Amino acid sequence: MTTTFSYEGKFSERSRETAVSHPRHATYDFAVAYPPPDVVPLDGLIEGLKKGLEREGHDLVYYTERNGNAALREFTAQKLADDRGITVTPEEVFMTAGSGEANYVLIHALSDPGDTVITEQFVYVGTLNQLKTHGINVVGTPIDDQGIQPEALDELIKDLTEQGKKPKFLYTIPEHQNPTGSTMPTERRVQILEICHRHELPIIEDDCYVDLRFDGEMQEAFASLDTTGMVMHVASYSKLLAPGLRLGYFVAPEEVTNRAIGFRSSGTANHFASLAVEGYLTEHLQDHKDDLSDSLGAKANAMVASLGENFGGTGATWGTPQGGCYLWLTMPEGTPMDKLVDEAFDAGVGYLPGSAFAPNGDGQNCARLCFAYETPEKNRDGITRLAEFLDGKGLMKAAPAD
Amino acid sequence: MTTTFSYEGKFSERSRETAVSHPRHATYDFAVAYPPPDVVPLDGLIEGLKKGLEREGHDLVYYTERNGNAALREFTAQKLADDRGITVTPEEVFMTAGSGEANYVLIHALSDPGDTVITEQFVYVGTLNQLKTHGINVVGTPIDDQGIQPEALDELIKDLTEQGKKPKFLYTIPEHQNPTGSTMPTERRVQILEICHRHELPIIEDDCYVDLRFDGEMQEAFASLDTTGMVMHVASYSKLLAPGLRLGYFVAPEEVTNRAIGFRSSGTANHFASLAVEGYLTEHLQDHKDDLSDSLGAKANAMVASLGENFGGTGATWGTPQGGCYLWLTMPEGTPMDKLVDEAFDAGVGYLPGSAFAPNGDGQNCARLCFAYETPEKNRDGITRLAEFLDGKGLMKAAPAD
Repeated sequence: MTTTFSYEGKFSERSRETAVSHPRHATYDFAVAYPPPDVVPLDGLIEGLKKGLEREGHDLVYYTERNGNAALREFTAQKLADDRGITVTPEEVFMTAGSGEANYVLIHALSDPGDTVITEQFVYVGTLNQLKTHGINVVGTPIDDQGIQPEALDELIKDLTEQGKKPKFLYTIPEHQNPTGSTMPTERRVQILEICHRHELPIIEDDCYVDLRFDGEMQEAFASLDTTGMVMHVASYSKLLAPGLRLGYFVAPEEVTNRAIGFRSSGTANHFASLAVEGYLTEHLQDHKDDLSDSLGAKANAMVASLGENFGGTGATWGTPQGGCYLWLTMPEGTPMDKLVDEAFDAGVGYLPGSAFAPNGDGQNCARLCFAYETPEKNRDGITRLAEFLDGKGLMKAAPAD
Repeated sequence: MTTTFSYEGKFSERSRETAVSHPRHATYDFAVAYPPPDVVPLDGLIEGLKKGLEREGHDLVYYTERNGNAALREFTAQKLADDRGITVTPEEVFMTAGSGEANYVLIHALSDPGDTVITEQFVYVGTLNQLKTHGINVVGTPIDDQGIQPEALDELIKDLTEQGKKPKFLYTIPEHQNPTGSTMPTERRVQILEICHRHELPIIEDDCYVDLRFDGEMQEAFASLDTTGMVMHVASYSKLLAPGLRLGYFVAPEEVTNRAIGFRSSGTANHFASLAVEGYLTEHLQDHKDDLSDSLGAKANAMVASLGENFGGTGATWGTPQGGCYLWLTMPEGTPMDKLVDEAFDAGVGYLPGSAFAPNGDGQNCARLCFAYETPEKNRDGITRLAEFLDGKGLMKAAPAD
């Protein structure tokens, strides 16, 4: 397209230039954020779609109800009750284009540029970008291997409030957190709810990884523990099935929903994909979760085993995930994992540096490793390759004995 | 969901409560905005999807390139060249969740609350709402049965600019306009381009009905007549196939696109639906357009014939559409079509009052009739029913002879 017309001075004040990023894939691609490609039920989705189209195919010409396809909302309400103990009507379920859209509209309904929002110390980069682009002052609250530390959160809210920066809400991924892979125990959630209630701080609970557990016990959702309506619960079919289906959802008090949806650019969630998802999952939810769990468990185990073999005794530490897609590697203080990203890529290993997830600017010595995408064999070999690469840099010295 | 937590004071300044509207369907439903349900190629979409999934099904786990599925963008670029004489690369095509999302992000990139924007005197209610919700001062420019009147537009731009309300852009549906059904001849477009260029006024051209022509000649697109990049071209697969697929697109200069997409709540356009659309249309575009044209032509003819039989000689006038979904009925001045909507609905006939589309607040004696959704028989009988209803109100007196 030829362009001679000048748009200078014609853009809105809120508009910003978005850079074009081209995804690149390393030989051992642990930088991605993809669920296992080997478990996507292609035939199952086609069968599900056929069933849905037979029932209501001609309704594709309608613009459906604003909160999305009724059959999928009914299925979702039942799933929330069965899996998460969250009691909502199908009318209270609001389907969106992925959980990303749910987070976007809730963020915009509940915050203005300049406002302060609390997230985990390391937070999903998509949400972090949504908050920053909106002009939010994002403050990370300290975490350990069980997620947010309640006392530290209480202190942080008090400090921010005293500074005149009373936070607008807490955003958290309590189950299989992105990027750290940790799960917050129910007892902590109860404590955090009490703290947030005392400070009148609403919570956006992003539960998008909950279906991806292969070990341990699911913890209770904030939204089922809360009885006041202060928790907005976001979830997704992107990780259970595939991001390309672009189907997520949220449940929130009606007054929040009625304001949130004004920020939706996209209209009603995709009806066509909704039919396929509902048609498939009504018959295959448990089978599919079993397949997913088998695949993810084998992949995570391979990566964890290889980390033990290659990084044991070097002072590095890593989480042992019970689900989700990610594992968090913490190298000894001073290891510049952030600066080594390109070189590691050239050496065949892709990862994201911890600093990419850090609202407070820390995490330079950390890396997020996605174990869900590559095969177990590649997970094992890729970690070996990463160790060799770091060793070549003189960064794999044995840790001093305590 | 129980709610005791108070959200008072917690909402963002820009948030507004959105009322829940429940669509209702009259016996003769001319109020809808639906393409013909009889032409939706359900089996064809499944076949297209299978083909796409065989080729790239496992890529559903990827978050695709920000501008959407490559195969569909390639098809779309070719279609724009073949059908509209618009030369763009597949990289310049930006897929969105319907044309509604394309309009939304362009509007937000190019205007701030309080800005003035020009539309046709009667304008698609979805876009009108997007503009009003964004706080835009929407001014309609006079139209006749060939769309925007160039001289009046020139005057309006001058007047607004003198009043310190220099408009930010012109939004227009030049082909089979919604709601009036008119098509703007190429010569007018050339004149309007000259005017807009003189005033440095960008144009958003919404071409979402272009595939729905059953009579007459397609007119040249603003985007093919323009050589400067001042025209942003929006279009859609919603009307050609079905809105439930949620696939539209726009092409615009890169600097506009890079700013527009920051306002997208939804992420990449639906990959799953993209595979079905590309798979079907690469083999069946012309067959499908022929089917659509046959169906729409028969439906429009039935409605126009019934209007002649029932409204001839009453002083009412109506357009004779060459495509699209709508026909514009103008009753004699003073006929309160706006106030009669509910009563007409109870009498079995649904329509939208002209005033719903009027930024300037006129159109009380007009109605938009969708001829695309009901059968030809129902179009004929529904118009008879509408005439009977209006006659019962004493509103069908013969027009005085001139």
